[in-house]
Amino acid sequence: MKNDSQSRDVFYVSDGTAITCETLGHVVLGQFPFKAKEKTFPFVESTHKLDELIREINQSYERNGVKPLVFFSIVVPEIRAGLLVSQAFCYDVLESLVAQVKSDLQLEPKPKLQRSHSVGKDSAKYFDRIAAVEYTLAHDDGVSLKNLEQADLILLGVSRSGKTPTSLYLAMQFGLRVVNYPFIDDDIKRLRLMPEFEIHRHKLFGLTINPERLTEIRENRLAGSEYASTEQCLQELASVEALFRREAIPYINTTSLSVEEISTRVLERAGLKRRVF
Amino acid sequence: MKNDSQSRDVFYVSDGTAITCETLGHVVLGQFPFKAKEKTFPFVESTHKLDELIREINQSYERNGVKPLVFFSIVVPEIRAGLLVSQAFCYDVLESLVAQVKSDLQLEPKPKLQRSHSVGKDSAKYFDRIAAVEYTLAHDDGVSLKNLEQADLILLGVSRSGKTPTSLYLAMQFGLRVVNYPFIDDDIKRLRLMPEFEIHRHKLFGLTINPERLTEIRENRLAGSEYASTEQCLQELASVEALFRREAIPYINTTSLSVEEISTRVLERAGLKRRVF
Repeated sequence: MKNDSQSRDVFYVSDGTAITCETLGHVVLGQFPFKAKEKTFPFVESTHKLDELIREINQSYERNGVKPLVFFSIVVPEIRAGLLVSQAFCYDVLESLVAQVKSDLQLEPKPKLQRSHSVGKDSAKYFDRIAAVEYTLAHDDGVSLKNLEQADLILLGVSRSGKTPTSLYLAMQFGLRVVNYPFIDDDIKRLRLMPEFEIHRHKLFGLTINPERLTEIRENRLAGSEYASTEQCLQELASVEALFRREAIPYINTTSLSVEEISTRVLERAGLKRRVF
Repeated sequence: MKNDSQSRDVFYVSDGTAITCETLGHVVLGQFPFKAKEKTFPFVESTHKLDELIREINQSYERNGVKPLVFFSIVVPEIRAGLLVSQAFCYDVLESLVAQVKSDLQLEPKPKLQRSHSVGKDSAKYFDRIAAVEYTLAHDDGVSLKNLEQADLILLGVSRSGKTPTSLYLAMQFGLRVVNYPFIDDDIKRLRLMPEFEIHRHKLFGLTINPERLTEIRENRLAGSEYASTEQCLQELASVEALFRREAIPYINTTSLSVEEISTRVLERAGLKRRVF
């Protein structure tokens, strides 16, 4: 195959999960005008695994006539050295930042394995995060309104406004305990706050969405239903937004936002602290 | 307050969600011997928000007598310039990598807003990821064994071996459709594979865990129960592991692994492609 400037092989390589390498490399490549054919090599901790990787790198070079790119994070010196002499452009995703901090603070860094995304020494913090996922799952979609005192956040909105994926992301990424509650049929006609929420008012946050988008999402789910009709969607959204305003519940419109963006905006508006895992 | 070399203020700043800045900065700081007091400023897109941030940076400097650290990613030149002259050590998390790729490939980068964690142009890819979260949720904990042909992976294991958080992480991070199925009471006594799984054998993957750890987790949930007893845990694990071996189902031990590590190892062993969002 000939060199195609529109496409290039990219490897994400780490002695850990390689999730940080993937995320960062992917963002960097988003600035360049070629298509990346991405492959990830996690847990490259042995010369055996290194050899396998080097073989793929060399094959890519021979096949395409151009060097592949490697975004990596490797602590063990021999593995690192072996990778650096391969037929690839290699980028250490941490090196430059660590060097700058070292120089500015005049502190010696200690490279360590299991840098991120591991249970680590602070296992209580990790298990608290998993408990948050479990709490959130048990309080999805109005299933339970028990133990609200443990909630960090209570999301309100009509069916299909983005509550469930947002709740799960907030739990998984930030360790928050999130309740979400949908307004349905009877609720919509005489809309009021559940009495259970009264003493947790400060935790309430609303999600809304454009009627056209809501109709589209519901049509995908239940084509031709009243549930998906423009009229129904318009009425539900008007009622719920009126409630948000009347009760002074902060809310955002989720149309065209990703779960990451919705979550980030909710945290910011609700003044909740972000925890980094 | 005096300068305390054991602690320093750290700001994560972005015109997007700042999730990449947080992840990367947190990993870099893990190599240094001080405690970071972290705060995140997402969506810094206006001079108004920049002013607020600069105020906090200056307050931190005055209060502590040392400059705070800022890990940032900002595209708009004026906002970027304003940040760089503040009383902080500022680290652009992308700059060095972009410069290296630019130099190696002789290609001009195009910095862009909404680099990561947005719905972006490829909205079909984003909605497929959300559909994966919904599929996974609908197939959690043996609730449904319908539509298994759509599954990318079927996780098996005893109750509390890590199936649910792993499934949700695989769906959210990698856009995979994951079914998880617990072996319970009656199953354990005469353990066999559900007939529904037969034609999906290649999708099966087992999770196991050390008996001591399983007892501990179950004790936290139902103290003093038979369910949490050492004997019960030992028996369940022995039966399930025997089944995995007999049926040649690949499996891993999740004790002391995080969801990210379990997920990465499962993908690797199952030969599933990682998608980057």
